[in-house]
Amino acid sequence: MASSGSMEDLTAALESSCSTQTAASAENGPGISKKAAQKAAKKAERLQNRQAAAATAATAKEEDDPLGHNYGDLPLEDVQSKGISGRIWTKVSELDAALKERNVLIRGRAQSARGKGKIAFLIVREQGYTVQCVATVSESVSKGLVKYVTGLSKESIVDVEGVVSKPDVEIASTTQQVVEIQVRKVYCVSKAASVLPLNLEDAARSERDLEKAEKEGVQYVRVGQDTRLNNRVLDLRTPANQAIFRIQSYVSMLFRQYLLSEDFVEIHTPKLMAGASEGGSAVFKLDYKGQSACLAQSPQLHKQMAICADFGRVFEIGPVFRAEDSFTHRHLCEFTGLDLEMEIKEHYFEVLDLLGELFVSIFDGLNAKCKKELQAINQQYPFEPLQYLRKTLLLTFPEGVQMLKDAGVEVDPFGDLNTESERRLGQLVKEKYNTDFYVLHRYPLAVRPFYTMPAVDDNRYSNSFDVFIRGEEIISGAQRVHDPDLLVKRAGDCGIDVKTLTAYIDSFRWGTVPHGGAGVGLERVVMLFCALNNIRKSSLFPRDPQRLAP
Amino acid sequence: MASSGSMEDLTAALESSCSTQTAASAENGPGISKKAAQKAAKKAERLQNRQAAAATAATAKEEDDPLGHNYGDLPLEDVQSKGISGRIWTKVSELDAALKERNVLIRGRAQSARGKGKIAFLIVREQGYTVQCVATVSESVSKGLVKYVTGLSKESIVDVEGVVSKPDVEIASTTQQVVEIQVRKVYCVSKAASVLPLNLEDAARSERDLEKAEKEGVQYVRVGQDTRLNNRVLDLRTPANQAIFRIQSYVSMLFRQYLLSEDFVEIHTPKLMAGASEGGSAVFKLDYKGQSACLAQSPQLHKQMAICADFGRVFEIGPVFRAEDSFTHRHLCEFTGLDLEMEIKEHYFEVLDLLGELFVSIFDGLNAKCKKELQAINQQYPFEPLQYLRKTLLLTFPEGVQMLKDAGVEVDPFGDLNTESERRLGQLVKEKYNTDFYVLHRYPLAVRPFYTMPAVDDNRYSNSFDVFIRGEEIISGAQRVHDPDLLVKRAGDCGIDVKTLTAYIDSFRWGTVPHGGAGVGLERVVMLFCALNNIRKSSLFPRDPQRLAP
Repeated sequence: MASSGSMEDLTAALESSCSTQTAASAENGPGISKKAAQKAAKKAERLQNRQAAAATAATAKEEDDPLGHNYGDLPLEDVQSKGISGRIWTKVSELDAALKERNVLIRGRAQSARGKGKIAFLIVREQGYTVQCVATVSESVSKGLVKYVTGLSKESIVDVEGVVSKPDVEIASTTQQVVEIQVRKVYCVSKAASVLPLNLEDAARSERDLEKAEKEGVQYVRVGQDTRLNNRVLDLRTPANQAIFRIQSYVSMLFRQYLLSEDFVEIHTPKLMAGASEGGSAVFKLDYKGQSACLAQSPQLHKQMAICADFGRVFEIGPVFRAEDSFTHRHLCEFTGLDLEMEIKEHYFEVLDLLGELFVSIFDGLNAKCKKELQAINQQYPFEPLQYLRKTLLLTFPEGVQMLKDAGVEVDPFGDLNTESERRLGQLVKEKYNTDFYVLHRYPLAVRPFYTMPAVDDNRYSNSFDVFIRGEEIISGAQRVHDPDLLVKRAGDCGIDVKTLTAYIDSFRWGTVPHGGAGVGLERVVMLFCALNNIRKSSLFPRDPQRLAP
Repeated sequence: MASSGSMEDLTAALESSCSTQTAASAENGPGISKKAAQKAAKKAERLQNRQAAAATAATAKEEDDPLGHNYGDLPLEDVQSKGISGRIWTKVSELDAALKERNVLIRGRAQSARGKGKIAFLIVREQGYTVQCVATVSESVSKGLVKYVTGLSKESIVDVEGVVSKPDVEIASTTQQVVEIQVRKVYCVSKAASVLPLNLEDAARSERDLEKAEKEGVQYVRVGQDTRLNNRVLDLRTPANQAIFRIQSYVSMLFRQYLLSEDFVEIHTPKLMAGASEGGSAVFKLDYKGQSACLAQSPQLHKQMAICADFGRVFEIGPVFRAEDSFTHRHLCEFTGLDLEMEIKEHYFEVLDLLGELFVSIFDGLNAKCKKELQAINQQYPFEPLQYLRKTLLLTFPEGVQMLKDAGVEVDPFGDLNTESERRLGQLVKEKYNTDFYVLHRYPLAVRPFYTMPAVDDNRYSNSFDVFIRGEEIISGAQRVHDPDLLVKRAGDCGIDVKTLTAYIDSFRWGTVPHGGAGVGLERVVMLFCALNNIRKSSLFPRDPQRLAP
């Protein structure tokens, strides 16, 4: 509890408050006496000093404040594992009416601080939740404390102790709307620089609000993608970004939960490899103790080898490296692959059945468990909820081509679809089947990797598939060639040097179950579930051809 | 169900069966007629042919066998997604007495096949579970089928259809001991080469059995580490290895499950970085689109940046790269890091409390859920179950040094412990406290990374810790320096160029909560929980200074 101050303190505080008022009047008002002018000048100087102090984050406290121990910068040693005080911090998210009149201690960021006379308002934010803290000069709260609060630099970490109270009117600007905290003590645990490279309020503003303001003649700062990414640690503090990465965490969790319940084994395959994992040029090369090595473009070869090693059903969540030059809204040089591979008895539909159920469980899970997060994203980046069927729609590639043709879009029936055709097909499928999520299978063999099983009835096609959300690919998969002779032939047909693949191909000579699998891009799933316009928004610290930091 | 043959088929089958018997008698019996001799020669030739056929994995089937459709090599197209038959495969692990007299279809590996006259025994293995399949010549089973079974090459994938029956005596050599399968049909789905680089029976033999056999004058092949790792896909099929990697999967699962329940967010940080993540020379370098880049030695910097970005508590499971030259039983150039980082209010004991509970939940989980797996490992690599306390033991570094001193081992009180001292201390702790799992904290500052928080009372020490299983380190962690000025100073003291760490250090200038965390080596946890003698045994496809394949 805050110690109560003397009567003298209270008077001093009131006087001080009055002086400020006077000073303000003096600056504005005409026809004042000399004494008053002197007084005003003195006050103005004090005000300047105060502002200067605020600008340097108000480290100073009034020397003679008998309640000075109730506020100030916490010495490092106090959070250097000096001891265990037994105090309990309440989470901002847990502050509610049930705690009314209770003394609480919170730790969070000074999102904003403003003071006027005897009162200061501090919004404290903890992981996306905010609460208003009010410091009012009283017998237990000194003028010095109010001044200190006012001068706190934005984003500083503060410990606030105070009493939970109910505001007269619900607070619209904080997440905790029915309670506020009457401050008794406040300490700064870690001071933020007074000038930040970006303002969080700007970074959190929606395009809609920006446009609305512009129409009204207000010009807000529009924080560009590069400024955000250059200062990612600040950018990530916006409510939308806090939500996006909590959703990303949920996607992985739901992915694994479903697969573990279906007898999959989680594996970890090496990212350092002797040969290029899938051929092609988009590979990062490096020296490995004198040997030429590269970074795995996918866990493809090793996850198949895990099947050859009798694990039956395996999955992996890990980084995937692509030295691509694509500078698009949906390509990264490093992303998180959700990979799975499984024995099949007869047909690649066994993989598709599982994938369909897996993703319905992920979408259901997100909708059920991430309501607040989805709402936070929607505030900044409004989007339509994902529409999906309980039983996932399967279309063949020729059916897709035909739908495009019927809509006047001509595509090569044995070529790949480009981004534009995929988008268009996504729209057509949505109109016809009312789903944003569907599978396109039986792709032309020529556009798939060498390890893809040709179709049994027509080897111009293959037992392969892509899966789409909102017209963009999130999954690629297939039945694999498990016959070593056919595999060698297919590698040769695709111009791949089988010598670099010896260990992989040999694995199939020791008996192999027919199998298939798929690779999912985690960032794409998050991006498209939330209809974000750029994959950099769903990558924590993105890597693209031009970005290797932070 | 097997289709029933005609009367003619039956006669042919019986005749065929009888001939084999006669041949066998002829070969063994003395004083035979010319006709019998001719017949015997003919039979011997047939036998030779049969053996030759067996050596080439018995592709041929008897041309004139009216029951020939019940066995043989399955054409590729039958498993090339031709159609969905609706047949149901039963797992070998699910075969039990409840299925007696039921017709079942299984798919697995021909672990061993041997025939004698009218009968053949085939052990089918599916993911570590085995069942005996018996093919006996009868009205529905031709001699050709029995011959075909006998000739199956080891490790080939087979579909076996038959009736579950109860053997007269429990079968000691298979995991399914109370049932066997009376074979009706058998097809080879994928043929293994007749000569394999290692024999699974050899690879699965325990040191104890090898020594016992040697004493009895039997010399088995001892499969060396390199042979195993060069042919890892085969090596991984042993029961012990199947178990090790299922346990590894469980460790990750239990790790995440606990942390998610404690409000941690799972993150994925980049492995491609502009500077060396922790300084030092043990870093893999590569060219990144013309920029000099390196592979992350840990997610240290980015997980701390995630804390600066308000995620509160984060964890990551991902690859960690160390270009070390250490060629020891416990170092790898690539391993799986289980990393966590969390806000702390006052003391690094908050991290230690969580780690203690986390690992007790992992150990409890493994003991409860992996009984079969632990048993399988114990068969090949016998070990004592891990002893651990409900409340994890904490010892300070000086206490550890004193215990060693009392035992006659002198160590530098401000240096690091070497492997030998750590082992010895582990033994002393086990004797005194009866635990294989404990924490040593308050390490000398000089032996910890620059971002480690110095101890508040004596800056020769630090707020850091290592955690040990059976005297070997599995976890390293600490409270971090969250003050940017101190961080710059510490980096300078450690001879690190802060220019390469700008983004990291800047993150602390925007307000940072005090925090701490730890990094766990997944392969080490598995290795030491099971008391394996080499980390290569708990890495799926290990990477060390001399190994980049398979």
